[in-house]
Amino acid sequence: MEAREILMKFKNNEMTLEEAEHYFRKQPFEEMEYAKLDSHREIRSGFPEVIYCSGKADEHFVKIFQRLYEDNGEVLGTRASRHQYELVKELFPQTVYEEICHIIKIEKPDKERIGNIAVCTAGTADIPVAEEAAQVAEYFGSHVTRIFDVGVSGIHRLLSRLDDIQSANCVVAVAGMEGALASVLGGLVDKPVIAVPTSVGYGASMNGLSALLTMINSCANGIAVVNIDNGYGAGYIATQINRMGCRKLD
Amino acid sequence: MEAREILMKFKNNEMTLEEAEHYFRKQPFEEMEYAKLDSHREIRSGFPEVIYCSGKADEHFVKIFQRLYEDNGEVLGTRASRHQYELVKELFPQTVYEEICHIIKIEKPDKERIGNIAVCTAGTADIPVAEEAAQVAEYFGSHVTRIFDVGVSGIHRLLSRLDDIQSANCVVAVAGMEGALASVLGGLVDKPVIAVPTSVGYGASMNGLSALLTMINSCANGIAVVNIDNGYGAGYIATQINRMGCRKLD
Amino acid sequence: MEAREILMKFKNNEMTLEEAEHYFRKQPFEEMEYAKLDSHREIRSGFPEVIYCSGKADEHFVKIFQRLYEDNGEVLGTRASRHQYELVKELFPQTVYEEICHIIKIEKPDKERIGNIAVCTAGTADIPVAEEAAQVAEYFGSHVTRIFDVGVSGIHRLLSRLDDIQSANCVVAVAGMEGALASVLGGLVDKPVIAVPTSVGYGASMNGLSALLTMINSCANGIAVVNIDNGYGAGYIATQINRMGCRKLD
Amino acid sequence: MEAREILMKFKNNEMTLEEAEHYFRKQPFEEMEYAKLDSHREIRSGFPEVIYCSGKADEHFVKIFQRLYEDNGEVLGTRASRHQYELVKELFPQTVYEEICHIIKIEKPDKERIGNIAVCTAGTADIPVAEEAAQVAEYFGSHVTRIFDVGVSGIHRLLSRLDDIQSANCVVAVAGMEGALASVLGGLVDKPVIAVPTSVGYGASMNGLSALLTMINSCANGIAVVNIDNGYGAGYIATQINRMGCRKLD
Amino acid sequence: MEAREILMKFKNNEMTLEEAEHYFRKQPFEEMEYAKLDSHREIRSGFPEVIYCSGKADEHFVKIFQRLYEDNGEVLGTRASRHQYELVKELFPQTVYEEICHIIKIEKPDKERIGNIAVCTAGTADIPVAEEAAQVAEYFGSHVTRIFDVGVSGIHRLLSRLDDIQSANCVVAVAGMEGALASVLGGLVDKPVIAVPTSVGYGASMNGLSALLTMINSCANGIAVVNIDNGYGAGYIATQINRMGCRKLD
Amino acid sequence: MEAREILMKFKNNEMTLEEAEHYFRKQPFEEMEYAKLDSHREIRSGFPEVIYCSGKADEHFVKIFQRLYEDNGEVLGTRASRHQYELVKELFPQTVYEEICHIIKIEKPDKERIGNIAVCTAGTADIPVAEEAAQVAEYFGSHVTRIFDVGVSGIHRLLSRLDDIQSANCVVAVAGMEGALASVLGGLVDKPVIAVPTSVGYGASMNGLSALLTMINSCANGIAVVNIDNGYGAGYIATQINRMGCRKLD
Amino acid sequence: MEAREILMKFKNNEMTLEEAEHYFRKQPFEEMEYAKLDSHREIRSGFPEVIYCSGKADEHFVKIFQRLYEDNGEVLGTRASRHQYELVKELFPQTVYEEICHIIKIEKPDKERIGNIAVCTAGTADIPVAEEAAQVAEYFGSHVTRIFDVGVSGIHRLLSRLDDIQSANCVVAVAGMEGALASVLGGLVDKPVIAVPTSVGYGASMNGLSALLTMINSCANGIAVVNIDNGYGAGYIATQINRMGCRKLD
Amino acid sequence: MEAREILMKFKNNEMTLEEAEHYFRKQPFEEMEYAKLDSHREIRSGFPEVIYCSGKADEHFVKIFQRLYEDNGEVLGTRASRHQYELVKELFPQTVYEEICHIIKIEKPDKERIGNIAVCTAGTADIPVAEEAAQVAEYFGSHVTRIFDVGVSGIHRLLSRLDDIQSANCVVAVAGMEGALASVLGGLVDKPVIAVPTSVGYGASMNGLSALLTMINSCANGIAVVNIDNGYGAGYIATQINRMGCRKLD
Repeated sequence: MEAREILMKFKNNEMTLEEAEHYFRKQPFEEMEYAKLDSHREIRSGFPEVIYCSGKADEHFVKIFQRLYEDNGEVLGTRASRHQYELVKELFPQTVYEEICHIIKIEKPDKERIGNIAVCTAGTADIPVAEEAAQVAEYFGSHVTRIFDVGVSGIHRLLSRLDDIQSANCVVAVAGMEGALASVLGGLVDKPVIAVPTSVGYGASMNGLSALLTMINSCANGIAVVNIDNGYGAGYIATQINRMGCRKLD
Repeated sequence: MEAREILMKFKNNEMTLEEAEHYFRKQPFEEMEYAKLDSHREIRSGFPEVIYCSGKADEHFVKIFQRLYEDNGEVLGTRASRHQYELVKELFPQTVYEEICHIIKIEKPDKERIGNIAVCTAGTADIPVAEEAAQVAEYFGSHVTRIFDVGVSGIHRLLSRLDDIQSANCVVAVAGMEGALASVLGGLVDKPVIAVPTSVGYGASMNGLSALLTMINSCANGIAVVNIDNGYGAGYIATQINRMGCRKLD
Repeated sequence: MEAREILMKFKNNEMTLEEAEHYFRKQPFEEMEYAKLDSHREIRSGFPEVIYCSGKADEHFVKIFQRLYEDNGEVLGTRASRHQYELVKELFPQTVYEEICHIIKIEKPDKERIGNIAVCTAGTADIPVAEEAAQVAEYFGSHVTRIFDVGVSGIHRLLSRLDDIQSANCVVAVAGMEGALASVLGGLVDKPVIAVPTSVGYGASMNGLSALLTMINSCANGIAVVNIDNGYGAGYIATQINRMGCRKLD
Repeated sequence: MEAREILMKFKNNEMTLEEAEHYFRKQPFEEMEYAKLDSHREIRSGFPEVIYCSGKADEHFVKIFQRLYEDNGEVLGTRASRHQYELVKELFPQTVYEEICHIIKIEKPDKERIGNIAVCTAGTADIPVAEEAAQVAEYFGSHVTRIFDVGVSGIHRLLSRLDDIQSANCVVAVAGMEGALASVLGGLVDKPVIAVPTSVGYGASMNGLSALLTMINSCANGIAVVNIDNGYGAGYIATQINRMGCRKLD
Repeated sequence: MEAREILMKFKNNEMTLEEAEHYFRKQPFEEMEYAKLDSHREIRSGFPEVIYCSGKADEHFVKIFQRLYEDNGEVLGTRASRHQYELVKELFPQTVYEEICHIIKIEKPDKERIGNIAVCTAGTADIPVAEEAAQVAEYFGSHVTRIFDVGVSGIHRLLSRLDDIQSANCVVAVAGMEGALASVLGGLVDKPVIAVPTSVGYGASMNGLSALLTMINSCANGIAVVNIDNGYGAGYIATQINRMGCRKLD
Repeated sequence: MEAREILMKFKNNEMTLEEAEHYFRKQPFEEMEYAKLDSHREIRSGFPEVIYCSGKADEHFVKIFQRLYEDNGEVLGTRASRHQYELVKELFPQTVYEEICHIIKIEKPDKERIGNIAVCTAGTADIPVAEEAAQVAEYFGSHVTRIFDVGVSGIHRLLSRLDDIQSANCVVAVAGMEGALASVLGGLVDKPVIAVPTSVGYGASMNGLSALLTMINSCANGIAVVNIDNGYGAGYIATQINRMGCRKLD
Repeated sequence: MEAREILMKFKNNEMTLEEAEHYFRKQPFEEMEYAKLDSHREIRSGFPEVIYCSGKADEHFVKIFQRLYEDNGEVLGTRASRHQYELVKELFPQTVYEEICHIIKIEKPDKERIGNIAVCTAGTADIPVAEEAAQVAEYFGSHVTRIFDVGVSGIHRLLSRLDDIQSANCVVAVAGMEGALASVLGGLVDKPVIAVPTSVGYGASMNGLSALLTMINSCANGIAVVNIDNGYGAGYIATQINRMGCRKLD
Repeated sequence: MEAREILMKFKNNEMTLEEAEHYFRKQPFEEMEYAKLDSHREIRSGFPEVIYCSGKADEHFVKIFQRLYEDNGEVLGTRASRHQYELVKELFPQTVYEEICHIIKIEKPDKERIGNIAVCTAGTADIPVAEEAAQVAEYFGSHVTRIFDVGVSGIHRLLSRLDDIQSANCVVAVAGMEGALASVLGGLVDKPVIAVPTSVGYGASMNGLSALLTMINSCANGIAVVNIDNGYGAGYIATQINRMGCRKLD
């Protein structure tokens, strides 16, 4: 709808002031002193706002947590410390802290989950990042199948779980060190593979940069990459894809 | 179906030798002297094999092109030179060469296309990579909307096309230099954004590495990245997503 | 004035020995055992000397602080620790410590401020660097408008503050992660944008190097970049520009 | 002015439809098939659009050149090849090609220039980039003083031109190899220094990356950096600053 | 044998002057004006000297080729140009030039070969490097099995050749792009895997550096890496290992 | 043996169900909740599984240690902390902890060792990595000769041990800083040299990356490289080679 | 003297067994269990062995310190911790610890010093590295002039000390951040400049790598560079040069 | 002499105007339109100015060559093309062009040379850079001993030339690939070693960066490094050192 059209409708009383204003108003977010909460976000993107907890001042963290919980009836924070957990636990005893992936959350009970995302890791040390992806995807309403420790140096472990992997709407491949898992998966499935390099490794792994380069250079098709250790980002985009995959086929 | 089950069925004559062998046979590809054509590929992944033409010897290139055309009734090659085009044009005069994105192809007429992918570029110099993405996606059966030259240094150009972008099932963001386009798009749509860094730029652009880092570090959600100048890879995964998006909603 | 001219004027008594010597003397600074205080600096550059506190030995730090305060009636130190604050607080109880940006200072009361600098950040985690820029600019006599948490992944937040940004003489863009804020700002204002990459981020952010590369490669005009986390440098050059912008138009 | 206010004024006939539409309309640029000319640009930024010629298709280049010339009565292109020059020379014989810095232009005669920008280079090999900066600044209406070959390995050459440098409103420091020129200049003037690293050098100069790092790490104040070889960018921001510096002092 | 012992034996006439001198003499190589041919090399290492042809002056190249042929009755050069081939072909018409891997050689007829080395490539573009490795190993007396185009994005192609791979004494894994082939092979065989990254790829492959990092970071056991495109080095060390593997088992 | 053949043999009762199933079964590993123990590994590769202890949760670490000990009667872990040692020492008092190289183990008494591997270091600071290599090789059944502190800046120290080095079946060269040791060794022996860069050094050593590059670029023959500080990997592949070297000569 | 000549002299009794053996013997160093002390070093190089203390085990450190002191009557260690100082102070109360540069030493009294080395720093934070260079040079017998805090952002400070700098036999330039000091010095003196990059700085200084690149790329003559923070190396080579400079002129 | 003293002497007629002016005058160089010839250079540094020919415009190159020849009776240019040689050969037929190292020169006949510099290379491909160093040093009046192709992979070649190397006043070590030559030399001589990394190599040699890192990290003493391929810089500083070494010993 063009501006001209709106203006005319408003003038002709086919539209109220509030309706017209809605199209042009400037502030679809809630101004706090230290941050701008994105209150239109769920409408715009289909996902509620999530807190990136790391580095937030105590006072700010608690207020944002509280506000989001009051707005949505549930809330999720990533990269939370145990200290931050203890802060909000006093206010909301139902808060849960997932130590392995540093997620803090209050989740609505009996949430329905749809579809399926396969979250795979190369080794056991990649599990924290994989859990972040899995729990974020679950919070956003996806079913998740966890398939851990199936790295390419023992390819038979991966092949034994092929059915589970191939039946998912989206595959998340979490791997540090050489990161070859994504390429092998890309050649075995017909769904998008979201690759997550991890900072697991030593020496020339350069905190995940080597794995990132491996994945970006993959010669397999249907692979795209998110940032090192970015389980959250992988869980988010995998959920976008999973939601599409749950539509009914003709 | 487990191996034990198959073996028993075969022994009990519930399954022929050919059927049983099918499960265990080793070679779902066609051995040529210099390459292994992946003849099961379309069955396995839903996509026909595509030729990466760059660096192939003339004789090999022509034979592979011919074989794939005979098998599928159509064929597509990326990063093809004009010289390679002339080689196959003699054999198949209906071959088309898209100079701007170095694609060579024979395509079945009246192919039906579904859904919608928005392919956006930051500048005009990014168009060759974007065209590779767009034409690959079209070849694989997707509708594509091209939205070029909408880089973030003139944000109003991008905002004016927002409706087109938001109605797509998947957005491909092609940008060199600083690569900020992906982040802005990620904040504006509720569908996955596939980011393609390009080697466009000079100075510290380092042939696309700077744009790649920008995109990988994006603070927006729903973004994943493919290799520098990898229009093909973006068109492929965008098609996977677009196909899902075309399923009927409940 | 050429050397020959000065020499002749001096010989002809048109100039005193002191005046002549002034042109050739060698030491416009104050020699301390461990440092050379630049006492001519304010005359030469229009800015008083500032202390970079990090790594200074306690004794040296206190003496330099004291000397500068005695010379100028005010003093400012960047990257100061709480320990350093406590050292000088005993001597000068009026000393102020800004915890968030690690600035320590004694400032003349009722200092007049001129013009306007807009200091913008992409996220809340960039605020410490932005505050360093803002407080340094204020200490040097500039008005500052703080516009925080307006990153490009939610572009509407930035657009809602456009008037404030466009009315400034200089814009400071502080951003970590992908650093795209500078490009978007560069396309929206007609004044110089000083971009400050921050070390905020994780994974492939490489402690701010990715943001630096993004900003250096910006395709927008009117952008120049200072070092990662260098809020002080941005506040300094923004003040130089702001002073010019406060001159009367014809 | 808020949206609500505009809407009411329009309804109450205090504003025409055209005036109201102006605030909300979407397309302040001219759509061509292959590009989006930014026709509002001069109004928004005070600078006309400039053509980055490198890599443009012949037909596109000529059309854009023509259109901009017709709109503004003058036009400037950077990184133009001799071939591109010959293309437009046929249409507009008054076109000038500056071989040393690859600038192509038709400039209004008797253009008035204001203020002063000092463009300095470390060596003779940096002159092409410096000339790009200088000519761009002149095209945008600035006076420019060229001070070439004053690198820090012969510091007396620089000191001999100090008066010229110190009297400028802005200093552009162009240097490859070790890039130390910017730091020395930063310590000698009280105006902003825009540093331009060049790709001049060999060995570990890494095509200008070393010079870029040197300049970004400068310990002097009042320095900000643009991309490697980006003379255009330096000329642009220096002109922004020079324009401010030409305002009358109180 | 200690120096003292040799000296006493010589004095006591239990050793001739020539024998004693042999232990202490300084020059086990042949001095040419422009190079030092390592004439003791075959004795010391079990391998004849090989010519690295690239960049050698014509005259020098021909003389070295001639000398080595006269000394050993055969000669091999790597990275030879067609021009260099034509130079020596005039002198020695039996010279052979392997265009695909740029090897030039005269080889003794009926050379016996022992053991087995499996040389695998990920794609067809890796074949030139693989051929260098294979032909060098053959020249040094090893049997070689070539297994090309078995990259991990189609893992079934690799698995179908497992028997051939597992029966070799050493496996050479040649791969560009993401280089994951080495890891998968390392998990499937009980013999050393020599990994050769290649410069094949584009974008972030950085001329083979990404593949090198992938291989160095491999989480599989029994893998060691040589330089990018260094087929010669891989063929050499694989032959050392193959020779050991041909010893009789107890 | 082809699938068809197995199927027919089974049908014809020349093979039992168990035997036939063996060829096709999918799971040659033991599924634990958090890991997949590779129980076929020793059969497949000739080496028992080893624990990479770093980062394992206490409970998981103890269970895996226990399981492997029960399966094999011995067990070895690398990169173990003293804390992890104390955990298992309570269960198995015979556990040994090698502080210098962070190895934890229970080893069968009177294990026979064969052949010889020379493990050399450039300096004393490289000893921890060298000891990891040496102890791993010994655990896997190799004799090891330790030759430490023979770096190339005092080449006579290395030459004095030449006999010991030249008589080994494989040489491991462990060096940080400039890593030149591998090249010198490569020129002196006729056996494979496995080079291990270490993170020893400061300044531009970049945590071992410089040494890695030095070794990868070695102009000597018969050298291959493992990851920085990867003593385990070197000990593993050196043992593979040593085992071959122990076969009887014809 | 050739081997043949020595052998004949020995046989003809013109040389004793000991003298002859001297030429061929293998071990000009003292074997300790964990290290090889280079007892011929002072004869060979003119410099006594120095201890690099960092990372040495307590017991080893003390024994080496003791042995070197007993051999030479003095001893110097670099990068020593206070803890290491306390260890040896109990044995040798005359031990001195220089906290600022982490040097530990017992020095012969009344050592004569010759010539002159100018050690310059850009800032006060570079002093620890400069002191290491200065004290090492003094220990090796050179006079040192310290000229600190003369960085190029205040070039007049450097120019005021020009006489002192120009009269030295060798100049050591110690600088972090942008490292431009070496270039300016190289243009002002006619003696070699040894440049020492330091890890001082933040952001894109990358722990001294930027300063290293600046210095390596210097366009001035007579400059060579040592490793980041390597004051010891600079003091060593500066002493070599200073000793030559103290020779009498004809 | 202080400014005050000079002024008084001048006023008191103890000094002429010219003498006084000499101390303060500003321009010890000759201004050409496009460059500033450093006419005081030989006085200041003891070395005549040398032309870096690469990239100079024909006209500029010829004029500078001519001017320097007229001033000094000889002239030397580095990195000259054959085309540049032909330009000046027409004017000065006595001009010599050294193709291998791209030096162009007219040299005074019967120039006396002093002292000795040993210029060593690792391989034959490093000779062009070594020749640049050698010829520059000879032009500046040093004797040079060339010792080529003595890389560390055949250490006996280097040891056989030890006497020649040890008798020089300065050693220049030229090496690409792994660059280990400098470390070995540093351990064998008691004179400064100037290390020159070369861009010779392939794969991970990264155009000399790997060799540069190797040399900078050398664990040997008495080594300092110049830029990649910078033979000129090495010849210059080696001559500075050689001149000192030619002074008479007491």
